[in-house]
Amino acid sequence: MSVLDSIDQPVLLLNEGVARANLERMAAKIAAAGVRFRPHFKTHQSAQIGEWFKDYGVQAITVSSVEMAEYFADAGWQDILIAFSVNIRQSARIEALAKRIQLSVLVENEAEVAVLAGLDAVHLNVWVKVDVGNHRTGLDWMELGAIMHLCRSIRRSPQLALRGLLTHSGNTYHSDGVADIQRTFRDGVERLNSLRSALLEQGVTGLEISVGDTPGCSLCDDFSGIDELRPGNFIFYDAQQVAIGSCSMEQIAVAVACPVVALHPERGEVVVYGGAIHLSKDFLEVDGKISFGLVALAQGIGWGEPLDHCIIRSLSQEHGILQFTDGKMPPIHVGDLVMILPAHSCLTVQVMRRYLTLDGKVFETMNH
Amino acid sequence: MSVLDSIDQPVLLLNEGVARANLERMAAKIAAAGVRFRPHFKTHQSAQIGEWFKDYGVQAITVSSVEMAEYFADAGWQDILIAFSVNIRQSARIEALAKRIQLSVLVENEAEVAVLAGLDAVHLNVWVKVDVGNHRTGLDWMELGAIMHLCRSIRRSPQLALRGLLTHSGNTYHSDGVADIQRTFRDGVERLNSLRSALLEQGVTGLEISVGDTPGCSLCDDFSGIDELRPGNFIFYDAQQVAIGSCSMEQIAVAVACPVVALHPERGEVVVYGGAIHLSKDFLEVDGKISFGLVALAQGIGWGEPLDHCIIRSLSQEHGILQFTDGKMPPIHVGDLVMILPAHSCLTVQVMRRYLTLDGKVFETMNH
Repeated sequence: MSVLDSIDQPVLLLNEGVARANLERMAAKIAAAGVRFRPHFKTHQSAQIGEWFKDYGVQAITVSSVEMAEYFADAGWQDILIAFSVNIRQSARIEALAKRIQLSVLVENEAEVAVLAGLDAVHLNVWVKVDVGNHRTGLDWMELGAIMHLCRSIRRSPQLALRGLLTHSGNTYHSDGVADIQRTFRDGVERLNSLRSALLEQGVTGLEISVGDTPGCSLCDDFSGIDELRPGNFIFYDAQQVAIGSCSMEQIAVAVACPVVALHPERGEVVVYGGAIHLSKDFLEVDGKISFGLVALAQGIGWGEPLDHCIIRSLSQEHGILQFTDGKMPPIHVGDLVMILPAHSCLTVQVMRRYLTLDGKVFETMNH
Repeated sequence: MSVLDSIDQPVLLLNEGVARANLERMAAKIAAAGVRFRPHFKTHQSAQIGEWFKDYGVQAITVSSVEMAEYFADAGWQDILIAFSVNIRQSARIEALAKRIQLSVLVENEAEVAVLAGLDAVHLNVWVKVDVGNHRTGLDWMELGAIMHLCRSIRRSPQLALRGLLTHSGNTYHSDGVADIQRTFRDGVERLNSLRSALLEQGVTGLEISVGDTPGCSLCDDFSGIDELRPGNFIFYDAQQVAIGSCSMEQIAVAVACPVVALHPERGEVVVYGGAIHLSKDFLEVDGKISFGLVALAQGIGWGEPLDHCIIRSLSQEHGILQFTDGKMPPIHVGDLVMILPAHSCLTVQVMRRYLTLDGKVFETMNH
C-alpha cells in the first residue's frame, strides 16, 4: 500500500530526496565560496529536519522569532540568530536565552539598544539591520550618521558585541527575471560593503556582512564581499520561486495532498478538501490569473508535473476550487487526491504543522 | 496590572462582553422567528466558547470538517452537522462518529451517496447541497432532474434519512450594500422553496430548508420559508463584515495585539511583530488600497476605534507594515502594542489557536 492510500484529509507531503538535494546543492555552493552558512529555519520549523543540516557542517542557524529560537535551543542548537528587529517586550526571554546559548539579535533603533544594554549580565551578539532597498525594516544604507551612532551605542555596552551589518534583500522576490535578481542581490552586497568602508573610515572596525534571500543565493554565483549567508526557503522552494526563476519545478519538495469532493464539469471546476487553513492565502499569477498554488496529479508515490491551464481560483476556509481555464478536465474522480504545490511553502508549513514523507515518516514542526 | 501589560508577542484578544452580546442578539432574533438555530462553530473552534451557546437553548451545531465534528463530539455535543460535501476518503471516521452522535452530512453527487449507503449499519441524516448562486459547491437549484434523482438515491438506503435542502449563500459576501445582501439572501431562500415545491410535486416529501451566512442572518428580518439557520462568523464579526455592512465596528469582538518593533516616520510606516502567521493573509479595501486588517490603539483594557488613513500595506511571515497614508503618524513608540482588527476573523482564529480575554482568561481552540 502506498503512503497516498492512507490519506483521508489534507496532508503536507514531503519529498525528502528532493529536499536533501536542495540542501546539498546550496551547502556545497556556499562552502565553495568560503562563506559561513547560517540557514534560516523559519521555512521548515522542524527539529528533525534541522538535523539534516549537521551533515553539511552547519552549527549556526537563523530563526524569525524568540519562540522559534527557544524551540531550536531546546533541540540542541547552540548558536542562533533571531533575524527580526528586537521586540523589547520580549527582553526577559531574550535574556534567558542569552544565558543558555550564543544568541545574536538585530537592532535598528536606540530604544532597542538601551533595553539590551540594560539586561542582566548577558553576552549578546548584535547586528545592525540595514535596508538596502527592500523598505520593510532597517536603517537606510545611506543614513551613515544614524548607523554610525547606533554602532557606537552598541559598542559602548560591554555586554553587547557588535558583529556587523545585516540585510534581507526581500526585493529580489519582486524582481523581473534572473538577471534582475542577480543585479538586485549584488547591488545590496555592494551597498553594504560601501557602508562598511565608510564606517571603517569613521573608526567603526571589524564589521561582518550577512545577507541571504533564497532567490539571490540560488541564482548568484558571486558571493564576494559576504561573510555569512542565510537562505531558508530553498530547502523546499515553491511555486512563487519557480515563477521568479529561482528553481525548477522538479526542485519543489512539498505538496499538499487534497481529496476531491465534487466535480462541476459544466464550469470546468473541481472542488477539493483543502482551503485557506491548509495552504494559506498566498498566491501567484498563472496565465494572468491569480492562483493559490499549482495543481498536479498523483504519480507513482508522489506527484507529476503541474497541469497546464489549471488554477486554484478560490480558497475558502476548507474548500479549494480548481478551475481548468480551457474547459478541458482530465479524468479526475470524487475521492481522488490532487497534489497542490504551494504558492509560498513557508506559510503552508506554518498552517499544516507536520509533514508526511513519501516513504511514510512523520516530521513535526514547532507548532504541532 | 492590565492584561495588556503581560503581552510580549502577538496575542489574540477576545472582548467576551461584545461576543456574548453578538450571540444574544442573533439567538433572540432567530428564536423570535421560530426557526431552529444551528450555529456554525468553525469561527470560534473552541469547546469553552461553545458552552456559551447552551444558555440560549442551542443543542445542535454546524462544523466544517470531520476533525472538528470529532472535537465537538468529544466536548459533549450530540447533534452535529458537517457542512462540507462528504469526503469519501473519511468514510471510516464518518461511520465511527455516526455511531456516537446524531450526525448530519451533505451530499451533492451519487458517488457520495453510494459510499454512505454502504457504511456499516449507521443512522445518518443527509442534506442535499444546493447551489443558489454562490457557485462553489452544490447542485444548481435549477437542475431538478439531478436533484430529484439524488433525493431518491438517498431515500432508497434504509440507513440514510433525507432531511432536506441546504445552501450557503456565500455570494452575500460579494454583495453591494445592505439591500443587495438582503435581496441575495431572500432570493436564495425563495429558490430553495420553489425547488422544494417542485420536488414535492414529484413525490419527494418532507424536506426542510437550511440556510445561513452571517451577512444574510445579520441584515435580514424575514426568515419565512426557513427551517434552520447556521450563521457562524457573527460571534466575533471582523473588518470585512463591517465593510459589507453586516455589523458595526463596535461589534467586532477580537483583535490581535502586536508589539511595535520599528518606526519609519519618513515613510509614515510602523513595523509590528505580527505577520501572516498571526493574521492570515485575507484582506479588505481601505481608501481604495488593500489592507490586511484595521489598526486601532490600546484604550483602557481593550482597543479604541480604528485609526483613519492607516492601512496594513504588507504582511510577511512575522512582520506587519502599517502605513499612514496621509503621512501623519500618531504618537506610537517602539514597545507599544497596536491592536489589529482582523480582515477575516475565522482565519485569524485558525492561525492564532488560543484567545486571551480582556479580563485575563485563556480559551483554547481545537488546534492548540
